[in-house]
Amino acid sequence: MTDMRERAAAYVRELQDRICKALEDLDGGARFREDRWEREGGGGGISRVLEKGSLFEKAGVNTSVVYGEVPETLSGQLKGSGGEFYATGVSLVLHPRNPHVPTVHANFRFMTRGEGAWFGGGADLTPYFPHKSDVRHFHGTLKAACDAHDPAFYPRFKKWCDDYFYLPHREEMRGVGGIFFDELPADEAHFDFLRSAGDAFLPAYLPIAERRMGTPWNDRERAWQLIRRGRYVEFNLVYDRGTIFGLRSQGRTESILMSLPPQASWAYDHHPLPGSPEEQALAFYQPGNAWA
Amino acid sequence: MTDMRERAAAYVRELQDRICKALEDLDGGARFREDRWEREGGGGGISRVLEKGSLFEKAGVNTSVVYGEVPETLSGQLKGSGGEFYATGVSLVLHPRNPHVPTVHANFRFMTRGEGAWFGGGADLTPYFPHKSDVRHFHGTLKAACDAHDPAFYPRFKKWCDDYFYLPHREEMRGVGGIFFDELPADEAHFDFLRSAGDAFLPAYLPIAERRMGTPWNDRERAWQLIRRGRYVEFNLVYDRGTIFGLRSQGRTESILMSLPPQASWAYDHHPLPGSPEEQALAFYQPGNAWA
Repeated sequence: MTDMRERAAAYVRELQDRICKALEDLDGGARFREDRWEREGGGGGISRVLEKGSLFEKAGVNTSVVYGEVPETLSGQLKGSGGEFYATGVSLVLHPRNPHVPTVHANFRFMTRGEGAWFGGGADLTPYFPHKSDVRHFHGTLKAACDAHDPAFYPRFKKWCDDYFYLPHREEMRGVGGIFFDELPADEAHFDFLRSAGDAFLPAYLPIAERRMGTPWNDRERAWQLIRRGRYVEFNLVYDRGTIFGLRSQGRTESILMSLPPQASWAYDHHPLPGSPEEQALAFYQPGNAWA
Repeated sequence: MTDMRERAAAYVRELQDRICKALEDLDGGARFREDRWEREGGGGGISRVLEKGSLFEKAGVNTSVVYGEVPETLSGQLKGSGGEFYATGVSLVLHPRNPHVPTVHANFRFMTRGEGAWFGGGADLTPYFPHKSDVRHFHGTLKAACDAHDPAFYPRFKKWCDDYFYLPHREEMRGVGGIFFDELPADEAHFDFLRSAGDAFLPAYLPIAERRMGTPWNDRERAWQLIRRGRYVEFNLVYDRGTIFGLRSQGRTESILMSLPPQASWAYDHHPLPGSPEEQALAFYQPGNAWA
């Protein structure tokens, strides 16, 4: 188990470096700021945040290795039994400025508690003006990474993502989904899969960002982006397990909440105009769409 | 009990009318839009929202009367026992545009479950550039309303407010507090107190808004307001019982979330400059300050 911990932590760090470098290259000038932090009960993390880039209004790519006693506030929520836990993972959220470039989230992690050990993670896309070709590319890239290991993975993890990134009080998803998986057994085959999924993030997202970053945008499109970012905030603060885990395990607040958008808005009872691109986007946010 | 229900519901509606009229007069032109909604399990509400006023960027003053079977998702969280509940209340959040005018929240309610019945409510102020005189006026007005009934009320309800409107992950309050109370016995004396507290809202808030609404403001002050509004969002979505009650009791989402600000922002690891007015504000957001 110690070996798997070290290898998972090493993969997580390597992926953080690789992703940050690719995002800096794409942004063309802006640089990630790095903060290293320690956790009182054991472990710590490396947070990297890029703000006010030309492409990314805010991008956070964090890693952490935390361990120690299971906090009382978390004991009932963590799978397994035993008083000691270990968790390592990389977690990222990218908020582009241009409303035509989708927001994206990904997370890949390894966790142990007592004798139990699991992999979890996933990646999901939140476009504001979705194009079918983009959504198909994102899902298709993740599907290929899944299919290389088990043809049952993609359908299962795609549905899991639809179910997870869902706001019951809005009756909509926060975006167009992707894949989500948790509590996969900590064997070599699933570690291989975790790395395939992690490695698929950049090829899944970068071509979409490159294709849309040159599209001009106006105030109306920005307003829609800010309203949808409000839904992103609602999801992360009300439902997201990673956020709740972080806040309750005495993680570093600024690292946990780096997922929140730089700006968001709420308009009372907002409904897009019939036939508008904003209204057409809503159909993309319904679960069960077949994209790949 | 039926009598108390009707009288509480009537007070709540009358207070809504009175407050909306005063806010429209103060804004000087903008009008509240009214939406009436029905709840599937029983009851409904009257939501009033004013957006893009000259003073208020967004103001919501809602009432509801909801009753029926206790939803399963709420059963363990509601005081008392029994399968039927009744709740009526007025709830308001005002988000002025000018960062020098404080945001304010108030709520006054009556609830029954089985044989039990209780009053609850309170009012709290969230200034972005706090002035001691304003905070003293707000607390002093609420204290006078409390003292007329029981000198023990204000100290108890002020501390309850400090404890309640607290963000543990930030180690700060969302504002400068006020009063908060819950589960007060449903007798005539406490109904009198509820009305005194409700009636004190306008005299507590209006003079502060009038005094500050003419103060010019700049982009830097607006940026601070938006960051603090982000904390408001964090509180409401992570900790606020009314929001959680509303979402879990199948209330109307747009009415529940009208408390969220029209715009908010999150800046990574933001710290005000030493000695700046923004930094001075932080001391106001610590619990335990004596204001009245």
